[in-house]
Amino acid sequence: MKLYEMATTPSCRRVNIFLKLLGVEPERVTVDVRSGENLSSHYRNISANLKVPLLEIDDDTHLCESVAICRYVDAITPNQLYLFGRSPLEMAQVEMWQRMVELQGLMPAFQAFRNLSGVYRDRETCIELWGEESKKRVAAFLPVLEQQLAKHRYVAGSDLTIADISAFVFIKVCENALQLPVIGHYPNISAWLQELQQHDGFSA
Amino acid sequence: MKLYEMATTPSCRRVNIFLKLLGVEPERVTVDVRSGENLSSHYRNISANLKVPLLEIDDDTHLCESVAICRYVDAITPNQLYLFGRSPLEMAQVEMWQRMVELQGLMPAFQAFRNLSGVYRDRETCIELWGEESKKRVAAFLPVLEQQLAKHRYVAGSDLTIADISAFVFIKVCENALQLPVIGHYPNISAWLQELQQHDGFSA
Repeated sequence: MKLYEMATTPSCRRVNIFLKLLGVEPERVTVDVRSGENLSSHYRNISANLKVPLLEIDDDTHLCESVAICRYVDAITPNQLYLFGRSPLEMAQVEMWQRMVELQGLMPAFQAFRNLSGVYRDRETCIELWGEESKKRVAAFLPVLEQQLAKHRYVAGSDLTIADISAFVFIKVCENALQLPVIGHYPNISAWLQELQQHDGFSA
Repeated sequence: MKLYEMATTPSCRRVNIFLKLLGVEPERVTVDVRSGENLSSHYRNISANLKVPLLEIDDDTHLCESVAICRYVDAITPNQLYLFGRSPLEMAQVEMWQRMVELQGLMPAFQAFRNLSGVYRDRETCIELWGEESKKRVAAFLPVLEQQLAKHRYVAGSDLTIADISAFVFIKVCENALQLPVIGHYPNISAWLQELQQHDGFSA
């Protein structure tokens, strides 16, 4: 397996934490997204969404979308971590919180960052007002996450799952890219972050 | 099982097609989202995201997020439809196309509709310019879907999956809510739609 990535992006960070927890170490190829290397004709031939990360399984088989890559690697790697949950109810609760973190947290955070910073202004129209509105929606989601972590040890309940990885990367985007301070302001999120960082993969 | 829903919304339509394919018929409770019934204190007690649909499993257990509901019902219902895929690779490919349809199609379509129509202006800030930009991004995704359906019978490959349900609802939003005509303009999408409508659930 070969992973095409730009390791510093949140989506690649998500996949890399997942791989680290499973102990999987694929061959790696760096794709410079900022300079547009992901728009080359070679990349167009192998990637359906032109983004990183992309997993090459063999010459003819490629997977994009971070969560699809995680699901594949999890399914082919014998392990007892159950990062997507175990029972039908647990699997559904992981999916539910994973989606809430993505749809109310990570995606608005990406939209806030891209529209406010204009980092990809060379290839997309940026609407600053939407960036500001998205940042407000991100800030409104933090108390929802805080409340969930007041009641549960991890985001989807009592076990570490992919929802924690997504929420961890979301908090990093809040703090580092959006100047939305979290640590120290939300005690339960702060304690959960501290616990996560004791696992390999989160600490790097 | 009890499903809280407003049947006409795209998210409820998605879950209802899924349930129909599996032959599952839960008890139903209508929630009038337009008038804000989903913001009542009773609903706040049972729903983590305040949206429809919501599945009540028992008095203390509720699932929100459409795909989480589908995953749960699929896991507890003996069936050989494999709507989330079968082998590790197929499951990952379903997840990949499901997410592409959601992130590049359905979510921008929702953002276009909500920001342009102002249907929830009483409870969210609408940015018309973002509505227009989102509609352009939706239009840019249609050729991607057309190309995939030129190569494959269904959205994620050779079998009917949840990615087809999501794409079907996406096309309906394009045609009915965004005035983006699809049928007749994209031959492969049009043929696929015609085939889908022969399945119970899609035709309603």
